[in-house]
Amino acid sequence: MQPPLMPPRPSRGGPPIVVLGIAGGTGSGKTTVARAIVERVGLDRVAYLEHDSYYHDLSNLPLEARRQVNFDHPDAFDTALLIEHLRALRAGRPVDKPVYSYTESVRAPTSERVLPRPLVVVEGILILENAELRSLLDVKIFVDTDDDIRLMRRLRRDTVERGRSMDHVLGQYEATVRPMHMAFVLPARRHADVIIPRGGRNTVAIDMVSDALLGRLAGQPGS
Amino acid sequence: MQPPLMPPRPSRGGPPIVVLGIAGGTGSGKTTVARAIVERVGLDRVAYLEHDSYYHDLSNLPLEARRQVNFDHPDAFDTALLIEHLRALRAGRPVDKPVYSYTESVRAPTSERVLPRPLVVVEGILILENAELRSLLDVKIFVDTDDDIRLMRRLRRDTVERGRSMDHVLGQYEATVRPMHMAFVLPARRHADVIIPRGGRNTVAIDMVSDALLGRLAGQPGS
Repeated sequence: MQPPLMPPRPSRGGPPIVVLGIAGGTGSGKTTVARAIVERVGLDRVAYLEHDSYYHDLSNLPLEARRQVNFDHPDAFDTALLIEHLRALRAGRPVDKPVYSYTESVRAPTSERVLPRPLVVVEGILILENAELRSLLDVKIFVDTDDDIRLMRRLRRDTVERGRSMDHVLGQYEATVRPMHMAFVLPARRHADVIIPRGGRNTVAIDMVSDALLGRLAGQPGS
Repeated sequence: MQPPLMPPRPSRGGPPIVVLGIAGGTGSGKTTVARAIVERVGLDRVAYLEHDSYYHDLSNLPLEARRQVNFDHPDAFDTALLIEHLRALRAGRPVDKPVYSYTESVRAPTSERVLPRPLVVVEGILILENAELRSLLDVKIFVDTDDDIRLMRRLRRDTVERGRSMDHVLGQYEATVRPMHMAFVLPARRHADVIIPRGGRNTVAIDMVSDALLGRLAGQPGS
């Protein structure tokens, strides 16, 4: 009888010291806030799970039908898998994070190995919406930015970086982005422990969160 | 010629390392949050200035007229003196904080000496409303609690602790507390760096702010 297959041993053992969740609407600056915190803490001490990598694989749908999917609704995400991965990291085990193709709405055949680290960051517009996911987060942050500022950012990003027309961006915003924000993203702000206004430009808040995390990680085994 | 009078030397020299402002509406739990942070940092490392000690002295008004004053309006406070004191503490000089009699709406003949400390905490419903005062705060916190929760707390506190009737409390709330909250307290939330929801029960946020402050104070001269 062969011995059971063992996962490769993580380079730094032990469960994480802090699991940090960062939510906020589209264009709120939550990714900028998350990246600034990761940079301050040090990339090698962070395991990063973005909800966007856990979109459902839509390869069973024809391409035209995939375009009709509401990607801002909680059901668009395979949150069960994210929860499974977060539980594994919390238990000190590595996970294989999906790699998602946003153009084709399918999961790539490859995945990305994520090792347990002292700080785990979970990021996404809807990560505070799911009660089970919330229960796995030690600190829950909501990045809160005015709606018109968020729309300006999204409009600029999607027209410049993704080559979409203004009409297309506004149509999508009105049809799904905004209704889902009102129905699911914004109500979940109520579950946040800390609210960071203005997003990525708020260096005072970013410094405060980073300093607190650095303090907790300092001198802890595995950090 | 005599040498100029020198102020007594503070027991810990030097300007503060952090000046923290904590605002929020009546019943928001801002005082509970402030006290919890002070306790975590250590009372002997904190200089505490509450805006409430800086109400204008109304001894020039007859007692009946004092009762008509709107104590929730920015003009009720001697904010110029608070700013002067904060500037002095920031420069490493001690100040004499007024002692205020809320029953008579006058300043007591005595005052309380406050020495410069590594952490200065400024607390009050309206401390983020004044631009000059804001410019002296390194970190601006707004404690944000739902309006009905705040009203319940104020109602219980004023009837139980201050022996006022429910009618009196609700009348005052409707006449001045609520309008001033909408006009001055809530709009100043926009200036906050960090928003703490739910107030004193939010131990995750209190721990985060305290950890960050402890990190900044650790190993600094004068701390």
